[in-house]
Amino acid sequence: MTKRFHTELEKLKKLILSLSAMVEEEVRMAIKATERRDAEIAKRIITDDYKIDEMEVEIEEECLKVMALHQPVAVDLRFIIAVIKINNDLERIGDEAVNIAERVETLAKRKSSVFYYDYTEMAAKAENMLKMSLDALVTLDIDLAFKVIIKDDEVDAIKSAVYQLTKDSIKDSPNDVAFLINQYLISRHLERIADHATNIAEEVIYLVEGEIVRHGKY
Amino acid sequence: MTKRFHTELEKLKKLILSLSAMVEEEVRMAIKATERRDAEIAKRIITDDYKIDEMEVEIEEECLKVMALHQPVAVDLRFIIAVIKINNDLERIGDEAVNIAERVETLAKRKSSVFYYDYTEMAAKAENMLKMSLDALVTLDIDLAFKVIIKDDEVDAIKSAVYQLTKDSIKDSPNDVAFLINQYLISRHLERIADHATNIAEEVIYLVEGEIVRHGKY
Repeated sequence: MTKRFHTELEKLKKLILSLSAMVEEEVRMAIKATERRDAEIAKRIITDDYKIDEMEVEIEEECLKVMALHQPVAVDLRFIIAVIKINNDLERIGDEAVNIAERVETLAKRKSSVFYYDYTEMAAKAENMLKMSLDALVTLDIDLAFKVIIKDDEVDAIKSAVYQLTKDSIKDSPNDVAFLINQYLISRHLERIADHATNIAEEVIYLVEGEIVRHGKY
Repeated sequence: MTKRFHTELEKLKKLILSLSAMVEEEVRMAIKATERRDAEIAKRIITDDYKIDEMEVEIEEECLKVMALHQPVAVDLRFIIAVIKINNDLERIGDEAVNIAERVETLAKRKSSVFYYDYTEMAAKAENMLKMSLDALVTLDIDLAFKVIIKDDEVDAIKSAVYQLTKDSIKDSPNDVAFLINQYLISRHLERIADHATNIAEEVIYLVEGEIVRHGKY
């Protein structure tokens, strides 16, 4: 590997970490907005999402440039392809944060006092999975990546629990159905964030082992 | 471009088209299962999804091999990266078909006579978007790709309409809430299929124009 190529790979790593930090912050804000039913924070998330979109485009351009210039092979090629795919997942996590913010905007308009699910635990788990998957990427830590994959089931279980609670609440208060469905949809967006974190973790394992762990072969 | 490289690019195109055909068929089956509330078809979709997963892995491996061997630059490099990303979208469309199948399995258990949304139009639109985006890829037809992006709004509008109808139906029949929510979720999975078709169309435009059309710059 030439020194220049090495420098450019380091630059790519830094770029993807900057994007990760932005996306993590966006998710944290979305969770805060949910907990407080805060339309102001929600609006800011929606307005600021373009920054993440721009960063994604920049990183993909950078990857293509590095590939064209240095013609990487083997593990370096795999690394850059992993960055392109993880970049994509990060941007879509940003979209899910926007989806949550849109739900919160709707919820904030209604001062309903019916069942309001406490998303603290689910949000913490999804956020933690995202953080772990990105740490696994930076340190190429395969054990950490596997932990992310296992945690995905916990988030799915909470989503199912929210579904049951929502169903019962709607039966009790059929007039609050819009409020309750909007609230339930937040669990689906959090679950999708966890899914994307799982995709990232799988990419890391693939990168390290050169094997395909996707599609439940482990 | 060497003759061998040319042959391998053609092979990649054929592979991605085979996967497309499989995914299109899976989506068609999911729609059929929805229309008939047919648990048998739903089960088959869920059982057979591994074939799509395996094909995705094969295509990505092939892309990496071609890149390592031929060190493509410029438009050829972009094409292969586009294939990797589209491959990913196709596999996720398969996952959405499985999600629909799971909803149908739940719906089939309940012989409820309440509101049953006719998904024919929405499904036809989503399926058509998928078909158009893949045609746009093969022919590198940018106009067709733009048509896909415009159609995405129509699918979103139907999803919103289903939401309204679902909400009203739940108010009228609160005891059928599980049935009605499961039915509504099908519209969300169809909408996600349309989203992935939009991603594919955007990749095609990007590939042809070498510009970024993602994130609503058009």
